[in-house]
Amino acid sequence: MAPGPLRIGIAGLGTVGAGTVRVLRANAGLIETRAGRAVVVTAVSARDRDRSRGIDVSGLRWHADPLRLASDPEVDVVVELIGGAEGTARALVEAALAQRRPVVTANKALIAIHGAELAAMAERAGVALAFEAAVAGGIPVIKALREGLAADRLQRVGGILNGTCNYILTQMRETGRDFAAVLAEAQALGYAEADPSTDVDGIDAAHKLAILAALAFGRPVEFGSVHVEGIRRIGAADIAFATELGYRIKLLGIARRSEQGVETRVHPCLVPAAAPIAQVEGVFNAVVAEGEFVGRLMLEGRGAGAGPTATAVVGDLIDIARGSLVPAWGASSGALSQLFSVPMSECRGGYYLRLTVRDQPGVIAEITAVLRDCGVSLKSMLQHGQADPAPDDASQGAVPIVLVTHETREASMQEAVGRIAALAVVLDRPTMIRIEPG
Amino acid sequence: MAPGPLRIGIAGLGTVGAGTVRVLRANAGLIETRAGRAVVVTAVSARDRDRSRGIDVSGLRWHADPLRLASDPEVDVVVELIGGAEGTARALVEAALAQRRPVVTANKALIAIHGAELAAMAERAGVALAFEAAVAGGIPVIKALREGLAADRLQRVGGILNGTCNYILTQMRETGRDFAAVLAEAQALGYAEADPSTDVDGIDAAHKLAILAALAFGRPVEFGSVHVEGIRRIGAADIAFATELGYRIKLLGIARRSEQGVETRVHPCLVPAAAPIAQVEGVFNAVVAEGEFVGRLMLEGRGAGAGPTATAVVGDLIDIARGSLVPAWGASSGALSQLFSVPMSECRGGYYLRLTVRDQPGVIAEITAVLRDCGVSLKSMLQHGQADPAPDDASQGAVPIVLVTHETREASMQEAVGRIAALAVVLDRPTMIRIEPG
Repeated sequence: MAPGPLRIGIAGLGTVGAGTVRVLRANAGLIETRAGRAVVVTAVSARDRDRSRGIDVSGLRWHADPLRLASDPEVDVVVELIGGAEGTARALVEAALAQRRPVVTANKALIAIHGAELAAMAERAGVALAFEAAVAGGIPVIKALREGLAADRLQRVGGILNGTCNYILTQMRETGRDFAAVLAEAQALGYAEADPSTDVDGIDAAHKLAILAALAFGRPVEFGSVHVEGIRRIGAADIAFATELGYRIKLLGIARRSEQGVETRVHPCLVPAAAPIAQVEGVFNAVVAEGEFVGRLMLEGRGAGAGPTATAVVGDLIDIARGSLVPAWGASSGALSQLFSVPMSECRGGYYLRLTVRDQPGVIAEITAVLRDCGVSLKSMLQHGQADPAPDDASQGAVPIVLVTHETREASMQEAVGRIAALAVVLDRPTMIRIEPG
Repeated sequence: MAPGPLRIGIAGLGTVGAGTVRVLRANAGLIETRAGRAVVVTAVSARDRDRSRGIDVSGLRWHADPLRLASDPEVDVVVELIGGAEGTARALVEAALAQRRPVVTANKALIAIHGAELAAMAERAGVALAFEAAVAGGIPVIKALREGLAADRLQRVGGILNGTCNYILTQMRETGRDFAAVLAEAQALGYAEADPSTDVDGIDAAHKLAILAALAFGRPVEFGSVHVEGIRRIGAADIAFATELGYRIKLLGIARRSEQGVETRVHPCLVPAAAPIAQVEGVFNAVVAEGEFVGRLMLEGRGAGAGPTATAVVGDLIDIARGSLVPAWGASSGALSQLFSVPMSECRGGYYLRLTVRDQPGVIAEITAVLRDCGVSLKSMLQHGQADPAPDDASQGAVPIVLVTHETREASMQEAVGRIAALAVVLDRPTMIRIEPG
């Protein structure tokens, strides 16, 4: 006898919620074939019952209070698509797990910040806590790390984790325009939020990186130790200089295992233009993983949007319908290892430094002396373009110069940048961008 | 109480077999953490007991006859790494399934040819038949299609499925040398077999494509309907012309759902140099999948070698240890759909055609008249380079010309090529390469 349908309660009917209902209905036959049983939405919760969402919600149980989904007798699995690390989303997930109901969520903030406790709750309840949709949308990267690559010891994971930033940086390069202009256009097109800070300040990518790092290295998720910088300070000049130097600028999430522990950081990077990750443009996401035995893998696809994200949510539901039960973090909570989080100051790499300096003799000597004193070794320098005329006073004009360093410690570089910024001949706040091999 | 170890019997201790033992031992602690129990090799079978393989086989049960692994009381899971679609490999897998023992295999020929019956046997036995290692080595593409993308209806799957061919084509482009010279070098380096035909004639890629198509479209695996061509006829001239036209030549596996059914084909293709798949070079593999909701995904990594393939084998073992049991083809055998296999003659696309013709007036007119008569519309033509001097007779020299067509039916193109080859002014067998958007 075929088992009865798996009954789904969805909290949050925004883009992803409505998309999930659509995928479950459009592919109902195919999903039943693959899941071995029907997967049907029986209950939903959203703020406004009457809003048009392009889906028919008549015949579904409607809860004004999403928490009611956790105890609705017609719901087997709770899908949390409200968002936010606290408040209702967190309360709903906790309530569902307390009722021993499996939970599927796309909520990266919740999982990055509270994922360790929630996984422990799910384990005690003996049910799944699944979050494939929380990272890189339609790319099944959680499954790849937790199951596909479970045999290997990974050294590195990360990549392009925020489509909004990648779209903005791609547009800046293609059009030569500045950050503010491209952001405004992205907002008009719906590629960036009205309040873009979660995206452009790197927070969204950092949530995702924290999740990837926990899975890759088998340690409890630790959002607080991720170093985060966004892309607001990248100027059209940086894009042009990077191109001239043979690089592209990408916002990367980087998690790396070293002898000291694990580095986790999100910041803009110069990557060689020929590196595979540099070819990933526009709203696409890409995750790179590297392991001792498996070598280097890259997974590329759409990281956001209703269709890709809903595909991931429903993929998790099919796993649950099939009876799969893999621990949320790939191992039971008690078996995770406590790896040291390496602070940013201890990370190493090459650096790009763009300065606006007074066009006068001796400037380069002054700056390079600081680098020498901080133990930072210079690899190359670019200085061209005319000085600004600055006709209204007697001072010399301003010219941009770009320095590229050999590999050095972040702490040394930070000290050098601080001292250089304080020089009288340096006219503007320096822009420092880290260089990654890609 | 923790469950006892999962006991593994491995048949075949070649590169992948020895690699599997190595991965299981090197990562034993990590694998136990993730699998929830130890995964240990207890028995092996190989031809020569005394051969040095860089692994210690003392203490393991040794079977001269691999079939004994199927009934060894100290074996819970049989890993088949013998290879070949028939003979011992097939007999062992059947014997193990008959004993209700889960089977893990890297054997693409066996799965492409007998995968449907074997999956039905596994289903009746209620055990797993797992073959992640059979396609694209360390890239978890089977899992991505069968589980990660299970919610979506895929339209297309395929990619670069044979690292040997991709290495040869990459080397040909980078060095300008001809196929034979690069093949000989690849053989010397161990990137190609002494008998390279399974690789360079496209058979290996076709096995993998048949498997991907069955998973992507939920139909029984059907190797016999894959159209297969290899890369032996690609010349240095084709590589150079392709580059001049803005393309790269890749051996692609292509499975596509159309209104008529499913196309499955493996052949060399011209792909735009800027397409993501064109950037995948050397021994790397890449699989592209495209679905209605998820959009386009690409997974890239090492498709062969001991480490990547063993990682996939052990990943399957961890799934089995975790108790996961997904049907081999993503749905029970009875639920697979019977989609029509579209013959190659009905496929459509653009074509590249390189001809060696007599350098005399009227040749182009003769050739283009044939194309017109066959209903093939010409998009562009290249003709340059000096005629061969041909000093020893009175005939005109030979010159290459390249024609690029608009989209047309394969049957029309084949007819045109046949007629063109028969023209007196055409001096050599034409080289026809299909053009793919990438």
